[in-house]
Amino acid sequence: MNIAVLGTGEVGRRLATKLVAVGHHVTLGSRTADNEAATTWAADHGPDAAHGTFADAAAGADLVVNATPGLVSFAALTAAGAENLRGKTVVDVSNPLDFSTGFPPRVVQPDGASLAEELQRGFPEARVVKTLNTMNNAVMVDPGRIKGHHTVFLSGDDASAKADVAALLESFGWAPAQITDLGDLTTARGVEQLMPLWLSLYGVLGPVDFNLGVALAEQ
Amino acid sequence: MNIAVLGTGEVGRRLATKLVAVGHHVTLGSRTADNEAATTWAADHGPDAAHGTFADAAAGADLVVNATPGLVSFAALTAAGAENLRGKTVVDVSNPLDFSTGFPPRVVQPDGASLAEELQRGFPEARVVKTLNTMNNAVMVDPGRIKGHHTVFLSGDDASAKADVAALLESFGWAPAQITDLGDLTTARGVEQLMPLWLSLYGVLGPVDFNLGVALAEQ
Repeated sequence: MNIAVLGTGEVGRRLATKLVAVGHHVTLGSRTADNEAATTWAADHGPDAAHGTFADAAAGADLVVNATPGLVSFAALTAAGAENLRGKTVVDVSNPLDFSTGFPPRVVQPDGASLAEELQRGFPEARVVKTLNTMNNAVMVDPGRIKGHHTVFLSGDDASAKADVAALLESFGWAPAQITDLGDLTTARGVEQLMPLWLSLYGVLGPVDFNLGVALAEQ
Repeated sequence: MNIAVLGTGEVGRRLATKLVAVGHHVTLGSRTADNEAATTWAADHGPDAAHGTFADAAAGADLVVNATPGLVSFAALTAAGAENLRGKTVVDVSNPLDFSTGFPPRVVQPDGASLAEELQRGFPEARVVKTLNTMNNAVMVDPGRIKGHHTVFLSGDDASAKADVAALLESFGWAPAQITDLGDLTTARGVEQLMPLWLSLYGVLGPVDFNLGVALAEQ
């Protein structure tokens, strides 16, 4: 596939690198065409690694990953262009966190709705799937780093888009039993609200890989 | 110990029953002295099971459990009386959920602070510890129902109060490795915000026992 990864931070670059490694052509998108992180990444990752503006990246993509900070994601998708998102699966891994009032940050969910729903409302012809926002980026692309049972969540209104994303997750190493489809996009509220707990755990555990797992009576 | 359990719903009764079973004298507290659920519970659970008003229960208690619905917890503690909470550990297992705008409910955290912090601010001489609010009541008192690794969180500003609560949890069957102390009471924000995800999981998994566990790279 041709995949656009919007956002040149650590999460975007990590996902882009993994997507190239599993066989996709990836364009790392940013606000400007000459973003240094993006040009360096593209130069370092071979012929299937490209870079460009958000619109450049999205225009040629079969699937779009939103790895921008949550509070600027709506602007990033706007810059990418609704026409470049039409009919495409948009994998939203962002977290709408406001650190301006200190720690712990607040999860910004205007009117109680998740950022993922806000993006879906703003770009109704895209097929938004929320996933991967509940763990660090090393675990996102290499779930085997964690030995115990742990879980990645999916939320979205379009079943075929969720199936595409589940397949992508499996190509990263996630086993089907680790992928929990929570239901429609309103369930993204809960996974976005996981971030304060995640940050508390990070405070306690330190810079180690960890993730939450859903443990059942039947296991 | 003499323990007051405030709240006569399923959670309160389940905790009260377990606390009697592990050797405590428990008074189930409610708004009125003749609450039917409380009188029935006390009649059914032997000489160490009593009932009374919130104030009756708290007055004689060494430790107080808040098992009232989150949106009425402040009123319940007010009825219990600040003088009856002074110096005591208050175990807050409640969830401040507002279902008035439909499903998923909203987590009510005025000014971004948790209910647990609001209770601590309102009753500064109590020692509030948030715990157990992230699972169903059967799992709270019988963690062995779930076979995989799973976790109970502690949040509170008073280390000795958290140690008391950890000991109580161990008497319920929680292993020390399952008890994760997240830090001060601001970390209760994150555990209260877990409820929407919990409710989504309940929607997917159905009425089975489940809980979240923190999985680490080292395990």
